[in-house]
Amino acid sequence: MKWDSVCMTTLVNGQSTRCVDLADRGFQYGDGTFTTVAVCRSVPLFLPFHLARLEHDCQKLLIPFPGGECLTREVRTLCNAQLDGVLKVLISRGIGGRGYRFPEPTNVTRVLSMHPLPDYPPDIRKSGVEIRLCEVRLGINPRLAGIKHMNRLEQILARAEWNAEEIREGLMLDAEGYVTEGTMSNVFLIKDGALYTPKIDRCGVAGVMRGITITTALEHGVVVAESRITLEELYAADEVFLTNCVIGMWPVSRCEHRTYGVGPVTREIDRWLRMKAEGELAAACNG
Amino acid sequence: MKWDSVCMTTLVNGQSTRCVDLADRGFQYGDGTFTTVAVCRSVPLFLPFHLARLEHDCQKLLIPFPGGECLTREVRTLCNAQLDGVLKVLISRGIGGRGYRFPEPTNVTRVLSMHPLPDYPPDIRKSGVEIRLCEVRLGINPRLAGIKHMNRLEQILARAEWNAEEIREGLMLDAEGYVTEGTMSNVFLIKDGALYTPKIDRCGVAGVMRGITITTALEHGVVVAESRITLEELYAADEVFLTNCVIGMWPVSRCEHRTYGVGPVTREIDRWLRMKAEGELAAACNG
Repeated sequence: MKWDSVCMTTLVNGQSTRCVDLADRGFQYGDGTFTTVAVCRSVPLFLPFHLARLEHDCQKLLIPFPGGECLTREVRTLCNAQLDGVLKVLISRGIGGRGYRFPEPTNVTRVLSMHPLPDYPPDIRKSGVEIRLCEVRLGINPRLAGIKHMNRLEQILARAEWNAEEIREGLMLDAEGYVTEGTMSNVFLIKDGALYTPKIDRCGVAGVMRGITITTALEHGVVVAESRITLEELYAADEVFLTNCVIGMWPVSRCEHRTYGVGPVTREIDRWLRMKAEGELAAACNG
Repeated sequence: MKWDSVCMTTLVNGQSTRCVDLADRGFQYGDGTFTTVAVCRSVPLFLPFHLARLEHDCQKLLIPFPGGECLTREVRTLCNAQLDGVLKVLISRGIGGRGYRFPEPTNVTRVLSMHPLPDYPPDIRKSGVEIRLCEVRLGINPRLAGIKHMNRLEQILARAEWNAEEIREGLMLDAEGYVTEGTMSNVFLIKDGALYTPKIDRCGVAGVMRGITITTALEHGVVVAESRITLEELYAADEVFLTNCVIGMWPVSRCEHRTYGVGPVTREIDRWLRMKAEGELAAACNG
């Protein structure tokens, strides 16, 4: 694994470096939060949503938010040098001493890194993907629920359960067995024309694309519910799809023994999401 | 907070540096494990136990263990330059690309850092400490239970609940309300002469000093049980104490409204643990 081959440019507190102090609490404790932005024709898609999520997650973790202007400036610097890619923006609680107590004063660390787009087959957004059920479950902790924090061992161990390239994602249940999310995506299901997605109030990440998908569906008159979803309900669904900001949305064609068609509601939502992204691009080009 | 004032010497993969690559999975995801060693007269106390715990935790996290000889060499390098202190040894999954999948091949990162001894009042090991109950609870995840991994946001948020210097530790319950551990220590209670400590099979850290305390108590004929412990049982206990490798053991003199005396069993165990540490020191000086 060569980092040079997978990370093109980086900024740490505005400086072009790859060096983080080993005393950074991000390194010592995973004490921070991040977001992952799709970059298309040098435009960071849905940037205001990502900044809002970072601010919200910093607040929940009691990390001082470095401010949208500062982050926007740094995001633009990296995006202007790159046509298409994936931009990761990370905020940690910064350098501290040994022990869990907050450092005083706290000087947060901002880390931006630009990565190549993953090379997924181009047709899977149309044809759908096969996913699997993970054995590793998500511990229930309402205090951390929703936050895209840097404590990601559950997802890492879940992702280590399979190697088959044709399986694109693993679905994770919470400690009580409710369907919660994919290792890197949120999950939606459609039943009788209504859209359901797991409540993210006890564990899981409230993804930016999850929020955009809910809003978009509501705008188009779809009935949406956030609820506890059992495996039986997942298997009984008419359609299932996954979302995140890099993939956009992927229909699910198979989960374990159950196959799904790429149904009409999924296709419609896909179309609306594409329109929204294209609207963003058009606005950025005219702006 | 100046890191220079709190960290004296460091080694990253054997090199004297404080720089960690921002692509290190320890930084990106908290993907690693660590242990904290008390250093007394240049002797890393209970080092074989710490190495065994690192090897065990690496195995559970599917991280290649860098080997006891390599780590021992690096530990000795830092300890020889320092009379008394706290040595932190951390192993991360090393540099990787974006995404949760393991890097291939995996080249782990070893980080050693020497810190000053914390300046606790010298008498609290005799007189006992006041602790409090934390609101933040520990999510249940048997897959991560016991491991001193680098995902420590639960402990960080719990430690942020109080500032009063006289409160030395916060007690954490699991998601179901069972007493589990302190933010930085394990907890023991004594009832009718028997020693009880929470089972660490669903969450919590199986501390090195916890293991040494259990073994020592058993060697001296004390009845020991690992069990689910309720708050009511904690408050009904005759004596309570905390352990970790830096503090050794602290009797608990108060938890919320309940006061405890420093009882005879706690005093005995304290004496045995001191003897064990002194035995280690004597062996190291003669060895």
